[in-house]
Amino acid sequence: MRPEVIVIGGGFGGINVVKGLKDVPVNITLADRHNYHLFQPLLYQVATAELAPEDIAAPLRGVLKRQKNVTVAMAEILGIDLKRKTVHVRMGERGYDYLVLATGVRPAYYGHDDYKAFAPGLKDLNDAVEIRRRILIAFEEAEFEADELSRQGKLTFVVVGGGPTGVELSGAIMETAARTLPKEFRHIDTRTARVILVQGGDRLLAGMPAVMGERAQRDLQAMGVEIRLNSLVTEVDEHGVKIGDERVAAENVIWAAGVHGQPLVETLGTELDRLGRVKVGPDLSIPGHPEAFVIGDAAQAIDANTGQPTPGVAQGAIQMGRLVAEIIQREVEGSGTGERPVFYYKDKGSMATIGRGKAVTTIGSRTLSGFLGWLAWGAVHMFFLVNFRSRVSVILEWFWNYLSGERRSRLIQGEPHGHVKEVRGIRMFEERLQDEV
Amino acid sequence: MRPEVIVIGGGFGGINVVKGLKDVPVNITLADRHNYHLFQPLLYQVATAELAPEDIAAPLRGVLKRQKNVTVAMAEILGIDLKRKTVHVRMGERGYDYLVLATGVRPAYYGHDDYKAFAPGLKDLNDAVEIRRRILIAFEEAEFEADELSRQGKLTFVVVGGGPTGVELSGAIMETAARTLPKEFRHIDTRTARVILVQGGDRLLAGMPAVMGERAQRDLQAMGVEIRLNSLVTEVDEHGVKIGDERVAAENVIWAAGVHGQPLVETLGTELDRLGRVKVGPDLSIPGHPEAFVIGDAAQAIDANTGQPTPGVAQGAIQMGRLVAEIIQREVEGSGTGERPVFYYKDKGSMATIGRGKAVTTIGSRTLSGFLGWLAWGAVHMFFLVNFRSRVSVILEWFWNYLSGERRSRLIQGEPHGHVKEVRGIRMFEERLQDEV
Repeated sequence: MRPEVIVIGGGFGGINVVKGLKDVPVNITLADRHNYHLFQPLLYQVATAELAPEDIAAPLRGVLKRQKNVTVAMAEILGIDLKRKTVHVRMGERGYDYLVLATGVRPAYYGHDDYKAFAPGLKDLNDAVEIRRRILIAFEEAEFEADELSRQGKLTFVVVGGGPTGVELSGAIMETAARTLPKEFRHIDTRTARVILVQGGDRLLAGMPAVMGERAQRDLQAMGVEIRLNSLVTEVDEHGVKIGDERVAAENVIWAAGVHGQPLVETLGTELDRLGRVKVGPDLSIPGHPEAFVIGDAAQAIDANTGQPTPGVAQGAIQMGRLVAEIIQREVEGSGTGERPVFYYKDKGSMATIGRGKAVTTIGSRTLSGFLGWLAWGAVHMFFLVNFRSRVSVILEWFWNYLSGERRSRLIQGEPHGHVKEVRGIRMFEERLQDEV
Repeated sequence: MRPEVIVIGGGFGGINVVKGLKDVPVNITLADRHNYHLFQPLLYQVATAELAPEDIAAPLRGVLKRQKNVTVAMAEILGIDLKRKTVHVRMGERGYDYLVLATGVRPAYYGHDDYKAFAPGLKDLNDAVEIRRRILIAFEEAEFEADELSRQGKLTFVVVGGGPTGVELSGAIMETAARTLPKEFRHIDTRTARVILVQGGDRLLAGMPAVMGERAQRDLQAMGVEIRLNSLVTEVDEHGVKIGDERVAAENVIWAAGVHGQPLVETLGTELDRLGRVKVGPDLSIPGHPEAFVIGDAAQAIDANTGQPTPGVAQGAIQMGRLVAEIIQREVEGSGTGERPVFYYKDKGSMATIGRGKAVTTIGSRTLSGFLGWLAWGAVHMFFLVNFRSRVSVILEWFWNYLSGERRSRLIQGEPHGHVKEVRGIRMFEERLQDEV
């Protein structure tokens, strides 16, 4: 009887466990709420209308169709019983010999869940499509808005959080306003749009070398992004935010200020850190449950070299996934010493784009910025995109955007007029009727 | 004072009026509920996961950014007053000198609006994304379904209506089941899926030459599509349909059986035909309102040559749009004889794809089918796609699909588990638990 391995979550961590077990005599079930693997590092480009959702999401069944020892199950996990070693889904209950939890994180509002409606986070495709809709609708509404103050509020974008997501989003929104849209509107100058990036600490990109944060700040400021360091957002509502003591009218707020583990891991009854991540042992298993692993953003995994927690980036998840696959393989095949290897995080560098032809990148001890940084950023992202066809499409889209500033994916999907906020003025229509009098 | 032209609807008809008025001294307002022009002939390829919505939808502002005499307004029209010559939107009321209604059609259920929930039609992008979701979810559910009959119901697709949309959809669904998916599932053979095409009349593609209908029928049957001619669907519910007297268990039904004008034109108080289209005069204006035109699918426009109504195809809308632009131009510039030109429909041919490398096409008096028909079909569609970047992307996608059968756009978007139907068996999970006993 082959051992049963259940992997929950088809992101970077989960997919690497599965692929690492390709030639191992196990039955794998990969369960995910969605039917696709999402290339999260480019999610911000969907939110800012440069790429289509289809460009960065590859159907899990397609990715794994040649690997015969895995069954993909599109399923929501209702519960996990670590003692009985079972996973509970709507279709029934299922026992496992090994369990790998790779459920990722969600946006954290630090006790202010009421912010969520006005300041969506960016963690999955639905978020990206919703943020795209809000950004595009803001310009559509501003075009008709007769009231000057109200129009300014519609054209003010606040990005909360100065990590890679916040930096990339604010750069891309500024580019959209300054480069893509100016010729498309008749009553507003989209270049007057304000993008405000709010960061609690004293520098951007706190997880990367200081020189990268400085460069990102300089480049963003040169593009016109306003950066508020050492600042906290203390209020968010329909019409704006409070940054420290200052009230800013802004109808578009995006929350990139932090993440928290998924509710599912809270039900395990194991120790979590303050970000809601499972504290795992050096072999990434849950203490007391050697057959149950947690990997990727869902885990607080201590790097055995540095004693520091592993950063929540794709590389961390990939490396954890590979180690867990190796551990399971050794045990199933009865090879190795019987002692499990422990997790070391190999920092392969970090990177963030800032705008057209601009990025900051560290690879090993080298730091690149500007155009070279951007080329390195592009090359690395291409390399890790799962799907060949997506690579061609994404390269074309980037090339096109680089030359023309065009963002082809500017769809406002869903029922557009169900969501539209009140437009207080009646700008265009009133103006013209007066003309005619 | 420049005359004000309001165009409602940014489809083939509306966009051609606007473009035809490029150099004419008028102020144009183009109003559409959505912010994009949709290339409807390829909508079925979004519904069947070959193309992304972004491939066939071009932002209206982008399409028209160089035309300075047009303002794009993303707006829902609340009312039209033909007497006062005003259009009412949420932002206010606006007077016009010329009005062009190009609002298209919606699926018609002939008094059976209760069918709609179980049998969506395919008219806009939201429909296409929803149909794609249903088709993909059907296979996901069947994979887990233990009950044989219930599984058959999930793997049975009924397409109601044998016009171009019905023919193209049923071919594409069959290809997905027989070519794209077989290697991706572990518990079901997707090639056992049934696709049933139901047509009320005695042949397919009733609007095209008889030889095309016959060829389409032969090609579809060779692919495994079951074709029911002279058959009516008399019942649709959650679990299936009644075709004539026969009850067929089918959880996936798509309605391509007919169309009806939009509710907006019903409020005009003018004469409509039985399809809810406005009966327009030879110059495409509403009788008694020479400054108000109706074009495209929304109009019942009689071809001055044949005395027959113009078919509801892209070419009809394009030609009507151009004529109306010409009429307005003449009057604004005071050129021409003072007598308005009348509408002649120039039939440039018709076409429908059937499957991989197979289509039926008539261009002028020539009929092409099979691979040649498909090449002609592809070339014509490329020519009319608005956006250069989309052309590259669509050609790549077709080429890729032709070679590999891959359909890259297989995303189940939205909250997937909010919609999932009950799965009665618990196939995989139960089976395996029993294995372990």
